[in-house]
Amino acid sequence: MARRSEFQQIADLFAPLAASAPGALGLKDDAALLVPPAGQQLVVTVDAILSGVHYLPDDPPDLVARKLVRVNLSDLAAMGATPAGMLLACAFPRDCSDAWVEAFAAGLALDVVEFGCPVIGGDTVATPGPATFSLTALGWAPMGQALLRRGAKAGDLIAVTGTIGDGAVGLWAAQGRLTGLGVPEDACAALAARYHLPQPRLVIGQALRGLASAAMDISDGLVQDLGHVCAASGVCAEIRLEAVPLSAALQVAREHTHIADELVLTGGDDYELLLTIPPENWPEVEARLGPLAPTVIGLCREDDSAAETVRVLDRQGQPMQLAATGWQHF
Amino acid sequence: MARRSEFQQIADLFAPLAASAPGALGLKDDAALLVPPAGQQLVVTVDAILSGVHYLPDDPPDLVARKLVRVNLSDLAAMGATPAGMLLACAFPRDCSDAWVEAFAAGLALDVVEFGCPVIGGDTVATPGPATFSLTALGWAPMGQALLRRGAKAGDLIAVTGTIGDGAVGLWAAQGRLTGLGVPEDACAALAARYHLPQPRLVIGQALRGLASAAMDISDGLVQDLGHVCAASGVCAEIRLEAVPLSAALQVAREHTHIADELVLTGGDDYELLLTIPPENWPEVEARLGPLAPTVIGLCREDDSAAETVRVLDRQGQPMQLAATGWQHF
Repeated sequence: MARRSEFQQIADLFAPLAASAPGALGLKDDAALLVPPAGQQLVVTVDAILSGVHYLPDDPPDLVARKLVRVNLSDLAAMGATPAGMLLACAFPRDCSDAWVEAFAAGLALDVVEFGCPVIGGDTVATPGPATFSLTALGWAPMGQALLRRGAKAGDLIAVTGTIGDGAVGLWAAQGRLTGLGVPEDACAALAARYHLPQPRLVIGQALRGLASAAMDISDGLVQDLGHVCAASGVCAEIRLEAVPLSAALQVAREHTHIADELVLTGGDDYELLLTIPPENWPEVEARLGPLAPTVIGLCREDDSAAETVRVLDRQGQPMQLAATGWQHF
Repeated sequence: MARRSEFQQIADLFAPLAASAPGALGLKDDAALLVPPAGQQLVVTVDAILSGVHYLPDDPPDLVARKLVRVNLSDLAAMGATPAGMLLACAFPRDCSDAWVEAFAAGLALDVVEFGCPVIGGDTVATPGPATFSLTALGWAPMGQALLRRGAKAGDLIAVTGTIGDGAVGLWAAQGRLTGLGVPEDACAALAARYHLPQPRLVIGQALRGLASAAMDISDGLVQDLGHVCAASGVCAEIRLEAVPLSAALQVAREHTHIADELVLTGGDDYELLLTIPPENWPEVEARLGPLAPTVIGLCREDDSAAETVRVLDRQGQPMQLAATGWQHF
């Protein structure tokens, strides 16, 4: 079967993802147009992913696409923004089949609908290297109300949404490294799903505008990312290992194989929100979010240059020594 | 020398490019913020480039960066927009030196100033493949006044800015294929510069809001791109080869080596604007632009499904047969 040409691929596979956005101009113009809602400011971010680095070459293409979308929407969630559209630059390997691209576009289509976030622009090229994608996500937040990494103060609660460590252990599951150890299949599947399909915490981020003093999403490991919030805000942090929320699947897996606390604290790919919240705002957080309220894991402290920026207390209340704090790309 | 870490690279090389944009948050947050100017709509585009495909692996890194910027700003120019910021996703080869990245960032820095367009976000990853970059350019245009590809009507003049064909012949010059043929060095240098450093026609695009009926930038070849305008607008086009403006450098080069008319008509990389202009607006176009006024090369005609969409008349007034109309990536 002849492969689709560049223009045919756009018309067949990507233009339908733009159908709900008149300003996308059918992906047929030089640029897309977006009308700013009154009183809102633009929130914009970009992330790149690479086959063999950010996802496994054999990962299903629909999940690759959806993870790409969600990793970016997670950044919008961390700012408290509402998604408005995305632009996608794709470098497909020269031997990439039409079927792979079709499945990739089908994955995109699901998340375009799920998050109400149309594809409003893009570019596709052929590469002799690994598949490489970059996605730019655009959203809106009420003027002056976006959540930032700066803003945490000594005494603020440190909280996280969902559960931590599933991304890192989910990678093991996706790689088959939990197979044959007696870990139940449903736990493996749940962990792999957390690696493949993060859940951007858009609703929570939006609900916490005006309540959280700082926010970011946890992509490179809890301790490292908390260090970024501390550096931006000029505070230190102390968190308690036993307070860090773990999923049922991770707890089950841990009964069958060793999963180091360090992996939970420093593994990447969780895409949960890390929040600092002034204690006086906590009742309102619980009132707004109910069962979705984040879990408190520690406190911000005065910056004390004698101590490490992020201190983790183990189950005996002693500071842990962590060999590394998180993921760096190079 | 130890290579810079990911975070050090951002702090040392890219954060300075964000200094003029408070909403970039020092490239230290999850996303960037932009405040929409009153009465303006957002114009946004993305383009990807790849070493060995869109530029030569030995091209100076500062020129690679600046071409990437300019190719995207050319899309904003084609919409009549004013640049506001850009986001850059970089996949650097693992063996890419700090010096290469520094020179790349230095090139960016020049164009950030030249076009008043700060880097407000980005992502960097390491790749085992060729260097791959994608740039998202953001701009603003008065609500409802952006120039689109649709809108050309039968009877409208077809015009181009600058000169055509220099990009394609400039690639030859950059590859050394004009060397030893007697082409004067200054002509070779001028042509290579046109390939390496396109000039986004921002001022012209902005001036033609309300005057041009359609616009796009010429990146994949004049005839193919004119076909896109025709398809979007539902018209046909007839242009005259002898009216297509050629640079002095290209005319000199042509005295020494064969440069086919087809190459001028279908070669890519010119990044001039292709415009359709109702004849009654032409005096105002000349009044606004003076010596920068585009050159009329033909006319839009009624869509006549019996004829080809774009007809090029040769110097004898006969329709030319073109083997291909322009560049496709795959």
